Amino acid sequence: MAATMKAAIFVEPGRIVLDEKKVPEPGANDALMRITTTTICGTDIHILKGEYPVARGLTIGHEPVGVIEKLGRNVEGYTEGQRVIAGAICPSGHSYACLDGLHSQDGQSGAHGLKPMGGWRFGNTIDGTQADYVLVPDAMVNLAPVPDGLTDEQVLMCPDIMSTGFAGAEAGNIKIGDIVAVFAQGPIGLCATAGARLRGASTIIAVDAVPARLEIARKMGADVIVNFKESDPVEAIMQATGGRGVDVAIEALGLQSTFEQCLKVLKPGGTLSSLGVYSGDLTIPLAAFHAGLGDHKIVTSLCPGGKERMRRLMATIETGRADLGALVTHRYPLEKIEEAYDLFAHQRDGVLKVAITPG
Amino acid sequence: MAATMKAAIFVEPGRIVLDEKKVPEPGANDALMRITTTTICGTDIHILKGEYPVARGLTIGHEPVGVIEKLGRNVEGYTEGQRVIAGAICPSGHSYACLDGLHSQDGQSGAHGLKPMGGWRFGNTIDGTQADYVLVPDAMVNLAPVPDGLTDEQVLMCPDIMSTGFAGAEAGNIKIGDIVAVFAQGPIGLCATAGARLRGASTIIAVDAVPARLEIARKMGADVIVNFKESDPVEAIMQATGGRGVDVAIEALGLQSTFEQCLKVLKPGGTLSSLGVYSGDLTIPLAAFHAGLGDHKIVTSLCPGGKERMRRLMATIETGRADLGALVTHRYPLEKIEEAYDLFAHQRDGVLKVAITPG
Amino acid sequence: MAATMKAAIFVEPGRIVLDEKKVPEPGANDALMRITTTTICGTDIHILKGEYPVARGLTIGHEPVGVIEKLGRNVEGYTEGQRVIAGAICPSGHSYACLDGLHSQDGQSGAHGLKPMGGWRFGNTIDGTQADYVLVPDAMVNLAPVPDGLTDEQVLMCPDIMSTGFAGAEAGNIKIGDIVAVFAQGPIGLCATAGARLRGASTIIAVDAVPARLEIARKMGADVIVNFKESDPVEAIMQATGGRGVDVAIEALGLQSTFEQCLKVLKPGGTLSSLGVYSGDLTIPLAAFHAGLGDHKIVTSLCPGGKERMRRLMATIETGRADLGALVTHRYPLEKIEEAYDLFAHQRDGVLKVAITPG
Amino acid sequence: MAATMKAAIFVEPGRIVLDEKKVPEPGANDALMRITTTTICGTDIHILKGEYPVARGLTIGHEPVGVIEKLGRNVEGYTEGQRVIAGAICPSGHSYACLDGLHSQDGQSGAHGLKPMGGWRFGNTIDGTQADYVLVPDAMVNLAPVPDGLTDEQVLMCPDIMSTGFAGAEAGNIKIGDIVAVFAQGPIGLCATAGARLRGASTIIAVDAVPARLEIARKMGADVIVNFKESDPVEAIMQATGGRGVDVAIEALGLQSTFEQCLKVLKPGGTLSSLGVYSGDLTIPLAAFHAGLGDHKIVTSLCPGGKERMRRLMATIETGRADLGALVTHRYPLEKIEEAYDLFAHQRDGVLKVAITPG
Repeated sequence: MAATMKAAIFVEPGRIVLDEKKVPEPGANDALMRITTTTICGTDIHILKGEYPVARGLTIGHEPVGVIEKLGRNVEGYTEGQRVIAGAICPSGHSYACLDGLHSQDGQSGAHGLKPMGGWRFGNTIDGTQADYVLVPDAMVNLAPVPDGLTDEQVLMCPDIMSTGFAGAEAGNIKIGDIVAVFAQGPIGLCATAGARLRGASTIIAVDAVPARLEIARKMGADVIVNFKESDPVEAIMQATGGRGVDVAIEALGLQSTFEQCLKVLKPGGTLSSLGVYSGDLTIPLAAFHAGLGDHKIVTSLCPGGKERMRRLMATIETGRADLGALVTHRYPLEKIEEAYDLFAHQRDGVLKVAITPG
Repeated sequence: MAATMKAAIFVEPGRIVLDEKKVPEPGANDALMRITTTTICGTDIHILKGEYPVARGLTIGHEPVGVIEKLGRNVEGYTEGQRVIAGAICPSGHSYACLDGLHSQDGQSGAHGLKPMGGWRFGNTIDGTQADYVLVPDAMVNLAPVPDGLTDEQVLMCPDIMSTGFAGAEAGNIKIGDIVAVFAQGPIGLCATAGARLRGASTIIAVDAVPARLEIARKMGADVIVNFKESDPVEAIMQATGGRGVDVAIEALGLQSTFEQCLKVLKPGGTLSSLGVYSGDLTIPLAAFHAGLGDHKIVTSLCPGGKERMRRLMATIETGRADLGALVTHRYPLEKIEEAYDLFAHQRDGVLKVAITPG
Repeated sequence: MAATMKAAIFVEPGRIVLDEKKVPEPGANDALMRITTTTICGTDIHILKGEYPVARGLTIGHEPVGVIEKLGRNVEGYTEGQRVIAGAICPSGHSYACLDGLHSQDGQSGAHGLKPMGGWRFGNTIDGTQADYVLVPDAMVNLAPVPDGLTDEQVLMCPDIMSTGFAGAEAGNIKIGDIVAVFAQGPIGLCATAGARLRGASTIIAVDAVPARLEIARKMGADVIVNFKESDPVEAIMQATGGRGVDVAIEALGLQSTFEQCLKVLKPGGTLSSLGVYSGDLTIPLAAFHAGLGDHKIVTSLCPGGKERMRRLMATIETGRADLGALVTHRYPLEKIEEAYDLFAHQRDGVLKVAITPG
Repeated sequence: MAATMKAAIFVEPGRIVLDEKKVPEPGANDALMRITTTTICGTDIHILKGEYPVARGLTIGHEPVGVIEKLGRNVEGYTEGQRVIAGAICPSGHSYACLDGLHSQDGQSGAHGLKPMGGWRFGNTIDGTQADYVLVPDAMVNLAPVPDGLTDEQVLMCPDIMSTGFAGAEAGNIKIGDIVAVFAQGPIGLCATAGARLRGASTIIAVDAVPARLEIARKMGADVIVNFKESDPVEAIMQATGGRGVDVAIEALGLQSTFEQCLKVLKPGGTLSSLGVYSGDLTIPLAAFHAGLGDHKIVTSLCPGGKERMRRLMATIETGRADLGALVTHRYPLEKIEEAYDLFAHQRDGVLKVAITPG
């Protein structure tokens, strides 16, 4: 093992560059993971643009597929050389938040408090996965062995995109026979569509403006396609549902417009399941909200992590219940990650997800 | 039985007057109920002011305690002369909404749709309870016998205030050990406080500015009192919780300010349970919402109705689990209901709820 | 419309015969339905054998597909000539049980009690569906219009088999990534398998001894097939799960042996979802139950009914989420229903479900 | 700190003796806790009698109140000298079971399995708390600081009895207005009664035969007392509920007779919440189980542990929501623990719980 490695580092707003770093030594509860495949997330683009602040010099990325290189002194139950993934969210397992089932809001503020988004550490508060190696904290909580027979790309969506998208469907508490609308069919929206299908939605309405994405949405389980450039999505959905509206609307973009449309197509008693990362205050329109008397629910979800979640998602892939391979549209070696960022940031060439492979 | 009766009628914005009406005949599934006690609700004041439109000539009021005067042809299982109440919300029992558990959003729009707030009929879409008699629709769904030994005033809060306030606690999904804040200690907020206590909240923080209300809040179960005129409620609550915030915040007023304060004191993963009737668009502040990544829930509840709900609430009173008698601060005969409206609309004399007794 | 009709009538244990009956007149809340297709259920065989007692002279059957012939005086929202189904369970909509969400335990015993299985009326407490016509009670609660484009046989499983089997999956509270075992792949077990698939089980293990049924189980979503004549099902399942056991075990037969096997393959914290109709006391083995300390759940479900449930199931068929057409293996005109009973009672010729068509 | 300590050790069936042991050294993730108060549990009596096998030489006891003596190398967020408790169940925080919310079934069997009751370690698989010192494993998961102002005896029930009894009420999913019966009013049953009250049960029926326990049951929240030596409890409960039965029946003894009585008084759709430790196979009577068609639930709970649970329970005591001090009927120094075992094993002198205080 070399003493140094390549890593995609946040230098300043507008600049993420590939540079050299020392390969880190695992602490007692850590594992050092050699990355075999990782990817770039929309959140990384927010970091690139300076919209989401991180420390200068931080390695970016939070979606690791790889091999255990070295285990910390206290880590048991794994072997070096084992193929593993870890979730984008790395809960500690021991916080009040974790023990209360809120693994993503891990950490502690005050005596026994929770830390908003505290479970998100890779490429946020510690060095991330767009590198030859990454330290996985609380390894016994977070390392999930990859079942034999699954390729890197097959499990590459598990750490973030798939876990998040499925969480949107789960938090919506979809029941058999439900009508579900999913606003935006980017990578997370497509996973939400697949998740809604997996939870038993009888009718799924997918909204986007990119025909190729709407086409993939059909493969993921959408029954009705709404191109919002061709028709008003609220009207189209109300018409498709005979004026009834949907049981669950999933917001997978992070805009006021889609948030609002979700509420407008929601039946009384329905649930708005929000996955988007918003960049401004949100407005709840009074009429769509029935002045607060519509028995509505608005729920938000941050990507669930931890090895049990990863195990469940990979099991779902293993038996063919979900196939998110189609989301990898481009592939780059780590050496060319700056090109990959350029492509992804500008959403060129129909890109959905980019697989990045170190050395 | 006389052929005519007195009824408080909406004439035009600003005018609800006591007038004569024909005593109605029950249809096949109705019951005619002789009112022995009813009350005025904050919603009635919205109607009075013209803020919530109803048909001119409509009898107002939706909180009936009384005696069965006459049963419709198909109504079984009750006897004339029986003491009963009915909920403010009168579900039909047979709509798609009811069969899906959404009794308050009863009724039908489109093929198998739901009607927002459709379960609210008394004093909204049909004649209400501020009269000598009222027709109870779908009587077999809605008439709940009053247990022997309970007085009219003891059960007077069941049809609306208590059912709504408790629903706020229930929808918040309070767990043993939760910290709950209740914003505003009017009649509904006080019931939400009592409900939070009944569901196992370990610490209840009550917010208001009226010392007398805060005093009653203590009796209902509040452990911590925050007078928002004396201290900023967000700061006070964050301090009282050691910076952790609350598990559940109940909004019981219907203002942007309290809605926003609820979010600001909510821990990540917490639930905002909203009971207020809002009169404008609502804003969700980005920071308090953690940009949509805080695993927050916002849930709204319309008063649950139906005889089973009423039975459960009265059982709770019967065994002394809740005692909402203290909320009745004033008493008027129906003849003087216009005076009662005047008092209640201007919130004079420390009024919480006014018992109205026909002839 | 003729004055008389044909009906399959329970005469005495061992004899269900086709006889003539008067076509009934709908009461105020009823609808008269002309049956176009119905079927025979395992429960009907229990009735035939005298194992489940019903009144002599009762028309048997509880799975109606047909056309509205005549509506009772109070029934609104339907038109004569409309194609409809009704659930095997016909809740009233107005009982305490219904208003508490327990539609299948409808009816009343005591002051505000529930009646075990009280929602099951067709072919149990009132005349059933194996006839030219049937009276549907509480028609506004129970009549569900059949979507255009769906055939009788496509929706024939909705009233009972599909609703029951799916309920087994729903009551098991299946999560994404769960391993589910379904014991017995008769009609209900096959529907439970399809339901488990629809709820997101990642691995479904189907147990039976009839190769043809196991083959259909694969089509319904089973990943692993266990023929209990070829291997011990407990051992086979523990091996297939690497010693972990299953998250949810669904009992779809009604025997001590399968009930016990469910517990034996259940992980700590797992759920046994029971659908079987048992004919004797059940034994819970101490070891498998971990002496009561395994955080196990045992839940039982009676077929959910009502028009909303039927609507949801038909929506699921409409979008192709479930296709239970393969379960109809035989077809008979009503005239030959006695032959159909003979075939079905003796489970000859690989029979799963028999479609019965009047006139 | 001395090098040796006193500890109550299991020698052989029939003999638990106080002996000397070395004070242990904390491993990296452990904490050494100096016990200030502990107690004897019914389970310890099973161990004493040899009914539940543990290793010879093991220190018994699983209910620790004390002070942190020494922290393991990796343990952060605590200070030596801090007053703490730990739950009887010490989850690791990092197992698949923990990450799936099944903390009590912690540990691993097979690849990613769960270990029945694996969270119970004190006095079962590692040395317990009836000693001067105890090692708390996974200290960051399990150590819960005691709020200022609470005495040892006030929090002595938290580690096991209170957590278990409350879990019985929680698992029963009690709703406002529910009628709950609690079978047996020993320490756990009394806590279940207090828990049912805390969750909003409107009527609680307590069953036992010891008048003093029934008297305490009233203080804990019971409304109706049934002495099963004076009347048949099934008849008494059916009469008290007007023939309706109860919504939730809690079994807190561990016998076939009480298990069966629970089912017999359960309404259709009701939940049997089982806390007892059974010593033989259980029989489910067919009639009470409505042949599997009663929409019944049977749920079992093992004591929830972990610092968050402990924190919540102590918060409940702090605000006076529950006061279980009355359960401590006797007090012994650790030196006389053999006497205490003798008293407790023979249930002499109205003993409920015995506080044991090391030198």
